[in-house]
Amino acid sequence: MKAAKLYGINDIRVEEAALPALENGMVKVKVEFAGICGSDMHEYVGGAYPFRTQPVLGHEFAGVVVEVADGVTHTKVGDRVAIEPPIPCGKCDNCKRGFSNLCKKGKSYGYSISGGFAEYAVVSEENVYQIPDNMSLELGALVEPTAVAVHAVRQSQLKLGDTAAIFGAGPIGLLVLQAVKAAGASEIFVVEVSDERRQKALELGATYVINPIDTDAATFIREKTNGGVEVAYDAAGVQATFTSGVNSVHPGGEFKIVSVWERPVEFNPNTVVSPEVKISGSFAYLNIFPEVIRLLARGVIDGNAVITSQISLDDIVDKGFEVLAKDRSQCKILVNMNL
Amino acid sequence: MKAAKLYGINDIRVEEAALPALENGMVKVKVEFAGICGSDMHEYVGGAYPFRTQPVLGHEFAGVVVEVADGVTHTKVGDRVAIEPPIPCGKCDNCKRGFSNLCKKGKSYGYSISGGFAEYAVVSEENVYQIPDNMSLELGALVEPTAVAVHAVRQSQLKLGDTAAIFGAGPIGLLVLQAVKAAGASEIFVVEVSDERRQKALELGATYVINPIDTDAATFIREKTNGGVEVAYDAAGVQATFTSGVNSVHPGGEFKIVSVWERPVEFNPNTVVSPEVKISGSFAYLNIFPEVIRLLARGVIDGNAVITSQISLDDIVDKGFEVLAKDRSQCKILVNMNL
Repeated sequence: MKAAKLYGINDIRVEEAALPALENGMVKVKVEFAGICGSDMHEYVGGAYPFRTQPVLGHEFAGVVVEVADGVTHTKVGDRVAIEPPIPCGKCDNCKRGFSNLCKKGKSYGYSISGGFAEYAVVSEENVYQIPDNMSLELGALVEPTAVAVHAVRQSQLKLGDTAAIFGAGPIGLLVLQAVKAAGASEIFVVEVSDERRQKALELGATYVINPIDTDAATFIREKTNGGVEVAYDAAGVQATFTSGVNSVHPGGEFKIVSVWERPVEFNPNTVVSPEVKISGSFAYLNIFPEVIRLLARGVIDGNAVITSQISLDDIVDKGFEVLAKDRSQCKILVNMNL
Repeated sequence: MKAAKLYGINDIRVEEAALPALENGMVKVKVEFAGICGSDMHEYVGGAYPFRTQPVLGHEFAGVVVEVADGVTHTKVGDRVAIEPPIPCGKCDNCKRGFSNLCKKGKSYGYSISGGFAEYAVVSEENVYQIPDNMSLELGALVEPTAVAVHAVRQSQLKLGDTAAIFGAGPIGLLVLQAVKAAGASEIFVVEVSDERRQKALELGATYVINPIDTDAATFIREKTNGGVEVAYDAAGVQATFTSGVNSVHPGGEFKIVSVWERPVEFNPNTVVSPEVKISGSFAYLNIFPEVIRLLARGVIDGNAVITSQISLDDIVDKGFEVLAKDRSQCKILVNMNL
């Protein structure tokens, strides 16, 4: 089958790849849509993550079941499914204590197992979730990144009526924006340098959008909120957003980091000590694909709004990775396997 | 009356000071013991905090009531009392939401009102707490710093049976050590460069003491705990303890900062994102003087163990601040007003 493989920095090639064996309990999925993730971009520009053990990329994907192996109990040929990539070990401390997203020994489709930028994926039945009839397979490919955003909001201390700020309005930032709105945030600030992304944020429910090039975000947010928001989310991952984010929350508030960081940041811990602010990380998601599928299917979160283009697998570098590296008007680019 | 006043960096003078007026609802306390705090040291070496509006230092003190004004209802001459320095405004957002320790407009004895390094203090009745007969006035002067440590542990996610690490075994570190032990920590790691302080930590219940000069604390702690402690507390406030502290907690764990920082730190946010670690501040205390007085009176926390010397007010610079600046075998130095 044809698949996109990571060879190294700035080196992704679409070429022939072996389809993994259809072992007991597994299903074969014809991939229909697969999204390019910020994590994929990090590997494209920075090289493979240490835990990557095979080259076929893609961990945001959906498709149709075309074959089922023995031992598959409730999935059948023709089912439309979204794939949850992680396979926690179930045996480490973190798994046993309910933090399977922090599993120390897990595997994952698109990293340690052949992923979704391919004509087919062979996936354990436990990792497929049926998509309702009224939900498109494009949205199926959005379940994974939406789960990242929903998990971040669920892990945060945001409560109905609180104010929130989001730094960075790429795909994750715009999904976090919609998630905090859906969770009942009363005012939402979005900080983003791109004009197009700020406009999109306004359309998706931001109360205020801030261009940090001409406005000090933390000062603006503190003034408008009488001292800061309850939770600021970082979906950008740079020094400027770290500094502004920590300084945008009120005493007792939380700076929740969803982003991946290319380099260290500098900050003065006094900024979190005297106001008892929390800085906390959010990673992946914790068994919430059913919740996220309901949110997307019912339009509580508008997944389509973050999709800016569909491309063919053959074009994944030129019209995918290269475009995302340069053009901040782009947001989520989906590979449409039928193009 | 005689009092110790902060004039500037390295400039504290013992000289005549005016006793504040005994207004309605206030009591006059003859100070018996007053402790030198790390915060006082920060002002001595770094200059006055922005919120200091008068020069008489001292916010850890206890004494005997010698006069009561009209409007005092339940305090009488002869009462032995510990003084809680902060006076929250009661009207700001933080006060109204139950975070009076983060009050935006409060006052405080020893900062904005004449403090405890003086023969007398005039204090609102609301700020004095009676000390039981079986508790010394030396321990009365320990109530304030012990409240800082107890608050940090109460604010942290430590639960009975958890493991904990403490970075820095000065007065606050040793009180945090005793507080986590009292709260049921099953193994306690103390990281400290001073031989004398490590020895003291062992005597007070540390399971392991680590000299970070010859042992990488985070590696040692992770090995001994199968991946890290539940909570690491920073009572040191330097780059090395920040780095080690963040890396000493297990996934989902907490790095709780109690210290004051002289300069910024550098760190990579990825270290808190993928393991969903929290960095959080703890500041002052939240209406817990009664709890702390019980803990000290019953010896659950041994306040005497952190007192290393008693000096006269006249000697506060030479035998107090100057000694603490140089001699890490010293821990809590009390000014004994009767010397």
